[in-house]
Amino acid sequence: MAYRTRLTVRFGDVDRAGIVYFPRIFHFMHVAQEDFFGDYVGVPYHRLIDEEGIGFPTVTDATEFLSVIRYGDVLDIHVFISRVGRTSATFEFRLHREATGEMLTRASQVKVAVNMQTWQKVSIPDRLRAAFESCKAE
Amino acid sequence: MAYRTRLTVRFGDVDRAGIVYFPRIFHFMHVAQEDFFGDYVGVPYHRLIDEEGIGFPTVTDATEFLSVIRYGDVLDIHVFISRVGRTSATFEFRLHREATGEMLTRASQVKVAVNMQTWQKVSIPDRLRAAFESCKAE
Amino acid sequence: MAYRTRLTVRFGDVDRAGIVYFPRIFHFMHVAQEDFFGDYVGVPYHRLIDEEGIGFPTVTDATEFLSVIRYGDVLDIHVFISRVGRTSATFEFRLHREATGEMLTRASQVKVAVNMQTWQKVSIPDRLRAAFESCKAE
Amino acid sequence: MAYRTRLTVRFGDVDRAGIVYFPRIFHFMHVAQEDFFGDYVGVPYHRLIDEEGIGFPTVTDATEFLSVIRYGDVLDIHVFISRVGRTSATFEFRLHREATGEMLTRASQVKVAVNMQTWQKVSIPDRLRAAFESCKAE
Repeated sequence: MAYRTRLTVRFGDVDRAGIVYFPRIFHFMHVAQEDFFGDYVGVPYHRLIDEEGIGFPTVTDATEFLSVIRYGDVLDIHVFISRVGRTSATFEFRLHREATGEMLTRASQVKVAVNMQTWQKVSIPDRLRAAFESCKAE
Repeated sequence: MAYRTRLTVRFGDVDRAGIVYFPRIFHFMHVAQEDFFGDYVGVPYHRLIDEEGIGFPTVTDATEFLSVIRYGDVLDIHVFISRVGRTSATFEFRLHREATGEMLTRASQVKVAVNMQTWQKVSIPDRLRAAFESCKAE
Repeated sequence: MAYRTRLTVRFGDVDRAGIVYFPRIFHFMHVAQEDFFGDYVGVPYHRLIDEEGIGFPTVTDATEFLSVIRYGDVLDIHVFISRVGRTSATFEFRLHREATGEMLTRASQVKVAVNMQTWQKVSIPDRLRAAFESCKAE
Repeated sequence: MAYRTRLTVRFGDVDRAGIVYFPRIFHFMHVAQEDFFGDYVGVPYHRLIDEEGIGFPTVTDATEFLSVIRYGDVLDIHVFISRVGRTSATFEFRLHREATGEMLTRASQVKVAVNMQTWQKVSIPDRLRAAFESCKAE
């Protein structure tokens, strides 16, 4: 089952065209990723970084912006993992307008486990791997 | 010839890991796009929106984050157009660290010409088309 | 009684010093203000702007940053109105770390009611005034 | 003499009301402060932090937003120091629209020298102090 989280579009997210400035959509996805680590994996992202010294920087992005996102929209964001390798995983994000269910953005991002001191790739720790493998598309 | 612009990474761009928070890299590319419209096309992006009522929202993104970008880095950003269709164009961005020439990020984004009132696709106006077609990779 | 809302500090809010980049604290206060309009006043801020054509730009700020705010902090933000004039009101923000109750930031901002088309000052509409007047410090 | 730097308002700085989202104005002032350290003081802000382990977090802000700042505005930002104490200094920012000279924002911010490891106050190092003391209002 995909993990789902909820996010409200704020005044500061919207540009002069009245829609979300698209770089902010990547911020929304990062926020959803942080919620996923805290709520689903059970390891708050800041503890992962601070205490375990591991981070998951993004190495590739493939995103389709299917429909505009507007101020006041409440987003229902689905997060799941479509592939788990030794050191990397592919995170999938689906942003829906909660009120209508319409899918607004669809993204696929490869993230790599790195040691935050050396920036070298490391194996994904077992308990994270187990969580990643269980989080599949609906 | 690709259009080139220069951007300095700022304190507020960098996250606690000491590298640029990746959603900010999309902001950098948007800034480079604005410079491209003003300097290369000869139509400041805000005039395009305000006076001609045309914008170029992004509909797809494909990005590779090849190397981390750090605070204090000066970026040499290359912008060119790899494809021009009737209503859309594919913008290419190559972010290099100016000091070393190393390519740090490579992105390809499809942008669609839309009427900013109706959000309907429109044909790319001729003078923009001519500029887009002349802006090829080096 | 002050209005209270809750906000979690995100990865993208934090700078390389490991603390919240201070311009983001003003964003947090704006988010709290939007929550105040939606939850306490009963008029979502975007409806106020879109349907009634009224906004509340900030004209002065006086802020004390009492203690640093860190990644992962959950903020308990108190909002109240210390003065209501004909066209302006003074909004007070108190940001506390929820876990300890410690006050981290204290701000006082004068906001003016303006017609969003003309940017002229307007009288604060009655139903907003009543809500503002009832929202006092604890 | 005040230090002066130049900044162009970007698409992503502007909100749906067509004016700069006010928390961004604090980002503009931070950018001007970084330019001041690099150009006027002669110590790039990131070297100060990385190599000398000293930062200047903001402890109080007093700002007047005199006039709206719009997309496409080019800002002429004046920075000067109105008071230098043992561990703190008061930074003054005056944002002008370059095209007209009109002052748009006036801010006064107290910054404290801190050791970035311990967050304890430290004396302002002599060469910074000399630079601060020489940078007075025009």
